[in-house]
Amino acid sequence: MTRKLTIDDLRKAAERLKNWGRWGDSDEIGTLNHIEPADIVAAAQLVRKGKAMSLALPFDSSGPQGAKTNYPPLGRFNPIRLMVRTGTDAYSGVLDARRIRTAEDVLIMPTQSGTQWDGLSHVFYGDYMWNGYDCRNVSSFGAAKCGIEKTKDKMVGRGVLLDIPKMLDMAYLPAGFAITGELLDRAIRHFQTEVGRGDFLIVRTGNMEEKLAAGSWDGYPGGDAPGLSFETLDWLQEKRVAAVATDTFAVEVRPNEIEDVVSPFHWIAIPILGLTLGEMFYVGELANDCAADGRYEFMFVAPTLPITGAVGSPTNPLAIK
Amino acid sequence: MTRKLTIDDLRKAAERLKNWGRWGDSDEIGTLNHIEPADIVAAAQLVRKGKAMSLALPFDSSGPQGAKTNYPPLGRFNPIRLMVRTGTDAYSGVLDARRIRTAEDVLIMPTQSGTQWDGLSHVFYGDYMWNGYDCRNVSSFGAAKCGIEKTKDKMVGRGVLLDIPKMLDMAYLPAGFAITGELLDRAIRHFQTEVGRGDFLIVRTGNMEEKLAAGSWDGYPGGDAPGLSFETLDWLQEKRVAAVATDTFAVEVRPNEIEDVVSPFHWIAIPILGLTLGEMFYVGELANDCAADGRYEFMFVAPTLPITGAVGSPTNPLAIK
Amino acid sequence: MTRKLTIDDLRKAAERLKNWGRWGDSDEIGTLNHIEPADIVAAAQLVRKGKAMSLALPFDSSGPQGAKTNYPPLGRFNPIRLMVRTGTDAYSGVLDARRIRTAEDVLIMPTQSGTQWDGLSHVFYGDYMWNGYDCRNVSSFGAAKCGIEKTKDKMVGRGVLLDIPKMLDMAYLPAGFAITGELLDRAIRHFQTEVGRGDFLIVRTGNMEEKLAAGSWDGYPGGDAPGLSFETLDWLQEKRVAAVATDTFAVEVRPNEIEDVVSPFHWIAIPILGLTLGEMFYVGELANDCAADGRYEFMFVAPTLPITGAVGSPTNPLAIK
Amino acid sequence: MTRKLTIDDLRKAAERLKNWGRWGDSDEIGTLNHIEPADIVAAAQLVRKGKAMSLALPFDSSGPQGAKTNYPPLGRFNPIRLMVRTGTDAYSGVLDARRIRTAEDVLIMPTQSGTQWDGLSHVFYGDYMWNGYDCRNVSSFGAAKCGIEKTKDKMVGRGVLLDIPKMLDMAYLPAGFAITGELLDRAIRHFQTEVGRGDFLIVRTGNMEEKLAAGSWDGYPGGDAPGLSFETLDWLQEKRVAAVATDTFAVEVRPNEIEDVVSPFHWIAIPILGLTLGEMFYVGELANDCAADGRYEFMFVAPTLPITGAVGSPTNPLAIK
Repeated sequence: MTRKLTIDDLRKAAERLKNWGRWGDSDEIGTLNHIEPADIVAAAQLVRKGKAMSLALPFDSSGPQGAKTNYPPLGRFNPIRLMVRTGTDAYSGVLDARRIRTAEDVLIMPTQSGTQWDGLSHVFYGDYMWNGYDCRNVSSFGAAKCGIEKTKDKMVGRGVLLDIPKMLDMAYLPAGFAITGELLDRAIRHFQTEVGRGDFLIVRTGNMEEKLAAGSWDGYPGGDAPGLSFETLDWLQEKRVAAVATDTFAVEVRPNEIEDVVSPFHWIAIPILGLTLGEMFYVGELANDCAADGRYEFMFVAPTLPITGAVGSPTNPLAIK
Repeated sequence: MTRKLTIDDLRKAAERLKNWGRWGDSDEIGTLNHIEPADIVAAAQLVRKGKAMSLALPFDSSGPQGAKTNYPPLGRFNPIRLMVRTGTDAYSGVLDARRIRTAEDVLIMPTQSGTQWDGLSHVFYGDYMWNGYDCRNVSSFGAAKCGIEKTKDKMVGRGVLLDIPKMLDMAYLPAGFAITGELLDRAIRHFQTEVGRGDFLIVRTGNMEEKLAAGSWDGYPGGDAPGLSFETLDWLQEKRVAAVATDTFAVEVRPNEIEDVVSPFHWIAIPILGLTLGEMFYVGELANDCAADGRYEFMFVAPTLPITGAVGSPTNPLAIK
Repeated sequence: MTRKLTIDDLRKAAERLKNWGRWGDSDEIGTLNHIEPADIVAAAQLVRKGKAMSLALPFDSSGPQGAKTNYPPLGRFNPIRLMVRTGTDAYSGVLDARRIRTAEDVLIMPTQSGTQWDGLSHVFYGDYMWNGYDCRNVSSFGAAKCGIEKTKDKMVGRGVLLDIPKMLDMAYLPAGFAITGELLDRAIRHFQTEVGRGDFLIVRTGNMEEKLAAGSWDGYPGGDAPGLSFETLDWLQEKRVAAVATDTFAVEVRPNEIEDVVSPFHWIAIPILGLTLGEMFYVGELANDCAADGRYEFMFVAPTLPITGAVGSPTNPLAIK
Repeated sequence: MTRKLTIDDLRKAAERLKNWGRWGDSDEIGTLNHIEPADIVAAAQLVRKGKAMSLALPFDSSGPQGAKTNYPPLGRFNPIRLMVRTGTDAYSGVLDARRIRTAEDVLIMPTQSGTQWDGLSHVFYGDYMWNGYDCRNVSSFGAAKCGIEKTKDKMVGRGVLLDIPKMLDMAYLPAGFAITGELLDRAIRHFQTEVGRGDFLIVRTGNMEEKLAAGSWDGYPGGDAPGLSFETLDWLQEKRVAAVATDTFAVEVRPNEIEDVVSPFHWIAIPILGLTLGEMFYVGELANDCAADGRYEFMFVAPTLPITGAVGSPTNPLAIK
């Protein structure tokens, strides 16, 4: 970036990129509207070798939450799973009065503690959220507008992987590396693919694999990271993508590109563009597969759980080739 | 059924249907092995109109857990969602010191409290679980064998809906209605479809829609219900289905077909056959769509969340046509 | 009551009874300030037979939350306890690699799901809370003012039981029975005791015992109930009690004494008087003991858990005689 | 210690100190039986200045769980508190349809995540627990025997503080410092007090205050620490104390005094002696007060929450002088 961005750039972007009303006054899913039925049919045609790859991190105590970091994300912790009945109960004979030997368990997790979708109720711009809804729609009762459950049948379409470190012949992008629109365009050419209306764009930075290789998440959750530059908001708007996901904690580059603003890309992407963001996607296996067969596009199915009123959802995204 | 089943029938079924070792001594996914890559490619070809339908109930306090019932399922409760930050916090100005206005939330739920997959660590036969593993592999630490995370990229293939009440010209099947293999065969012919190796079989009973229409889940969780008869275990084995799901609480018919045994179908299906079961699937919209276009097959993608060591997982199953 | 109360009575009471500033601008514990060291010394002198009685309900799934009721309390559920390690794990040998055999567990509960203290951050009057603090001090981050932890060493003093149904020769008071100041005065005379500055006043209605005897909590949580009349606010102010507790769900009489206002007593007691309220106290054993020895006063120790920022706390109150 | 202890010493201690049957075959509270009514009356007489001191750590995310340590305690995490309704909701007007403005919250915590009592169902000796009960009594359903609720009215009596570092003129005892019976006897003489039947013995090591002063809990949870030596088990038996509590994570000295045995003191204290242990007690304020007035005895009230079937309980212990 040649020029330091300011809060004024953020305000102008909010004016320039505002999609409020674009899909009607009652819309709650934003750019997911870009997907048309024909896109889903076309995406299914990309399934040629019958291979499904999971892009999810394990949901367990080995996850990134709680690691040391510059900007600790408030209130997040790794998933906690507790048993309600076990095989050791069965072995001990204490279940037999029930005349069936079963195990059950309970899950406690922030909806955004692992591989996840940020819903459109996750970030506010002033007192407003996506489509101009009053932010008070998101109270302790949950999200009365733009709850993640509104997307329950929307996370299906064509996926495209842009593997930036591979293009640059790097193992991974360093913290602070800002991925620009120009770089994304170059990647599209490099990998001989395209990104357009209704696509799910998945950008690999290598950040997650770097941490996994190091055996420590320190710096990952809320820390400095490679990621999309603020300027890509225009690029994404122009391309009309359905959603964007990365292998980083929060999609955008860190340190913050605008002083005194935390996550400026989020300020615009979610409430202004209505762009759903995918975070902490594990793309290692997918990247290897794309490199091997030279095909960087695939059918993409990453359902949210329809948790009523939730501002996000864990997901197990599948890339199917 | 003409003859009352006994515990001896259960034991004989365990011998007759035991798939332990069929996919190697270290297998942890059972009949999901029936799916071959070509099946996934073929399933994708079923996507012709670009329509995805969610088969998930909302995950919230309106769910079936806690309703009055004959055999209360132990330790289950409806999903609890709590906020970590809200739009009302934003409106009140208390978030501004953080220089971003966001909302977050936390989810507390039994893995089997709504639309879900029963993993192969869910039910034991004596001191054993699927593939002959010792049941003590499922301790308070979770499932060391057959955890649901082993299925993270497996829940993709061809889905087939058999709509039994529609075939019988009934709104829904009554409690105690046992669906036999003969009836399933008749449904296959009636709907001019087929069920075979690697398919995800979805059986509609109307039970869930009956409860939704009544506005009360009383009797649904662990109560008397229509469902698969014990004898369909042989039918499912022969057909080599990948998994079976229904719109009921627990797939099988209730009252229990064998006296003094709770859920005899489960005793065999999960630990002996290695059959993953889908429960509480909402199939109303799908049934209407199939009736409308006459096509009872579709691409089926119902990812589990890879919750390490979990005995089941909530899922948002998508039928894509 | 001869005259129907109105919202205007509520407003006048707020003016008349406002204790804001009474203990300084930075006070966060209200009427607990009435307790003086000499009161604690005197209370200890009431311990004569060395008998401690617990006034707590069991914290488990048998609690009152979730029962049928007229005004369902939002977001409350009975305590959920889940194991982290068990004796069945021990028996099964799976703990031995740790070289110690232990059991542990986890508790999930609303702070107000059983026997509990309502903290001064629990109820707001307009945009204000106790002592005139802005209600925005209680955000998703918790109670920055008047958190229950501020009371951690305050719940010690003289307790007095007023057993209204016993005085009236009734098994229990019926729903809607309003306990007036006059009745409380009569009880003081009847039981030959006194209520004064710094006392913990415990009023028995029999409501909880009625439900326990019936084997069903239906109607108890948020339902019509006997309880303190709105007019006792003046009486409590005059008496300078430290806190008030009852065996009902919410201390005050139901149906609400003021139309279109839910829990009018709460509106004044907590934010205006600064009066901490104890709810769902089990007083059956205590009442029998007092009847037996004729002494209706005792040392009372009912510590809150210092849960930082909590608006209430479960407690196991002890009456020591 | 002059001689290295072995597993054989542990076995001999189990034989020598076994209190099984001492209070009848159905006893579930062990040494708490040492307290007699007259002790409670006498304890109350120790209340002379009317000062209650809380010995509880704040229950919040600042607690010791999760800090770096040698022997990480499995499955423990700091208390999580989440709001159900807030003052910011109130301010935003979203509560007004309910006609009352209240805040509520929910607590999620291991029962042993902060200041707490270890119940007698917490540790097993072989396949047995306190009083010879089969360890399978503690299953996923909770503790059918020796649940913490059995102690609900027992935690009242005379408390004695033995401040070891003060006696030794040290700020705190270093990790590995084993407090012997001889040292306890010396402290009794030094502080001119006594320890006898039915007392609650509180031993200060300074360990917690050291960590608080350092601003980091690293090393505290499950790490090397000062504490009671294995040999004090005989001393405690002889003294007939009701319970023992310290300001450390787990009462006993670390590193473990017996090779290949984790927490040998626990192996004997809980299941063999039937001794309830208090852990993570904050004794800084109490120690200062005792030093100031020269009185190391006080009334002690530390109620457990009667969480049915729990193996331990958080507590807010009060020392009242």
